[in-house]
Amino acid sequence: MGGLKPGTGRANFSSIIPGWFSEMSPMWPGEAHSFEVKEILFEGQSDYQDVLVFESTAYGKVLVLDGVIQVTERDECSYQEMIAHLPLCSIPNPQKVLVIGGGDGGVLREVGRHKSVKQIDICEIDQMVIDVAKKFFPRIAVGFEDPRVKLFVGDGALFLKGVPDGFYDAIIVDSSDPVGPAQELFETPFFESLARVLRPGGVVCTQAESVWLHLHIIQDIFASCKKAFKGSVNYAWTNVPTYPSGVIGFMLCSTEGPPVNFKQPINPIEKAEEDDGRSPLKYYSSEMHSASFCLPKFAREALGA
Amino acid sequence: MGGLKPGTGRANFSSIIPGWFSEMSPMWPGEAHSFEVKEILFEGQSDYQDVLVFESTAYGKVLVLDGVIQVTERDECSYQEMIAHLPLCSIPNPQKVLVIGGGDGGVLREVGRHKSVKQIDICEIDQMVIDVAKKFFPRIAVGFEDPRVKLFVGDGALFLKGVPDGFYDAIIVDSSDPVGPAQELFETPFFESLARVLRPGGVVCTQAESVWLHLHIIQDIFASCKKAFKGSVNYAWTNVPTYPSGVIGFMLCSTEGPPVNFKQPINPIEKAEEDDGRSPLKYYSSEMHSASFCLPKFAREALGA
Repeated sequence: MGGLKPGTGRANFSSIIPGWFSEMSPMWPGEAHSFEVKEILFEGQSDYQDVLVFESTAYGKVLVLDGVIQVTERDECSYQEMIAHLPLCSIPNPQKVLVIGGGDGGVLREVGRHKSVKQIDICEIDQMVIDVAKKFFPRIAVGFEDPRVKLFVGDGALFLKGVPDGFYDAIIVDSSDPVGPAQELFETPFFESLARVLRPGGVVCTQAESVWLHLHIIQDIFASCKKAFKGSVNYAWTNVPTYPSGVIGFMLCSTEGPPVNFKQPINPIEKAEEDDGRSPLKYYSSEMHSASFCLPKFAREALGA
Repeated sequence: MGGLKPGTGRANFSSIIPGWFSEMSPMWPGEAHSFEVKEILFEGQSDYQDVLVFESTAYGKVLVLDGVIQVTERDECSYQEMIAHLPLCSIPNPQKVLVIGGGDGGVLREVGRHKSVKQIDICEIDQMVIDVAKKFFPRIAVGFEDPRVKLFVGDGALFLKGVPDGFYDAIIVDSSDPVGPAQELFETPFFESLARVLRPGGVVCTQAESVWLHLHIIQDIFASCKKAFKGSVNYAWTNVPTYPSGVIGFMLCSTEGPPVNFKQPINPIEKAEEDDGRSPLKYYSSEMHSASFCLPKFAREALGA
């Protein structure tokens, strides 16, 4: 996630509690989440955004883009595991996977757990995010070390134009918020491009905001996805303590073809983990997969789901 | 919830962002959640704690005890509905219910939805909390207007001493954090008292902290409850944006007797709502009830659950 002006990292430090970082954004006006800073590790400005890394006292290292927290070492597990395994555990035998965004490498790490996967393409727009992740977040950027991974640095929508019809089994859109560089990743033409490059019965999982803060945005995404995808469209959510409102959601969509029931995983990742040298899952399970589609009554009604 | 020194409301205002309230506590060191203040409505000191009410720009009115946010108008639904309906929807025909704490009246409002309930006793220690709730949070304190409600102002543990064995069908402990006035509500003797005054197969639901912040406290509560209750003991959680880490949990316990499977509600509240003039549920559903027992892998393993 990321993508908002104003708020360079430096502005966030100077304006609030001395020695603390505060996340403030017009996307969630009137509230702020602040973290005590042990050490500032990196500050830079890429072609796309301000990039900041600091060591917090409570959540380990924190990656911030344009003033908005993307990842902390302590709670990244729930976001990365859910955005990757919700789509990949919903279809049998995924082989070709595309990640759009996700420059920290965490989604790659999770996709890599799936032994059926033969090709993992990633298209991230910002080289600086990748560099910073590799330097400061080795347990997350480890995802780039998988030999199946092929990195493309560039615009995700543009990348899709060069992809043949029906090429991928699954696409994961690990984007920032729909303001700034990621805006087009929330619009109908982009969803139509995703649908075009997926095989029949292929799946997409895209970051889709919080039911407490952005129900209208979610309704818009839901409507756009219903148009673009002729299979199933479902909203799931997970708890991420350092994201605003403590939760973040995902829109899961499938193309016309073999039907996909996202709520009932058929490709359990727990099995793939056996006799594997990787660090174990911390958050995801098949049970959590199904539970994540259960929404608060107010959200279910707003989505007509 | 509540209960921590330091942090009068006033200190929270002066030390952080001008014009904002910041919640800081030794219970979650190194992070703070801040809210823009439209108007301070009440500041007082009771015999037990500092009491503060302000109107926020983002979450409506906010009740703060000893610097810790208890309730906001915008997100109180998830906490109140879950802490009340998780126990009451798990048993058939609940009739006598005790609420310990819960002076804002929100739990009473939710208990009152159950038509089988004939008696609702509440024991809240702090009269000022009740008065403030009635004045500033009428949609929450409406719970006190139910003719089945009988209010006792006093210490919960002491109140239990006067209750005959096996008296209640269900007890809901809507307490603050286990520091300050609520500390004894998290210890084994208190849980044993609860078990004593419940009928065979009766149930208790007690506020039980966040898996991200206080897993060790939860493990302790779990162990104490396993000792005190001879039926089932389960942990559930829900999302509350204005609580630290965005989630809060509940320990659900039943006494020896007719077995209780908390994960499968048998007394759906949706039915009770039909042809009823009350405001509809916003968060709880039978599906959410079951889903709330699904924990992150790291928490499930820590609890051996």
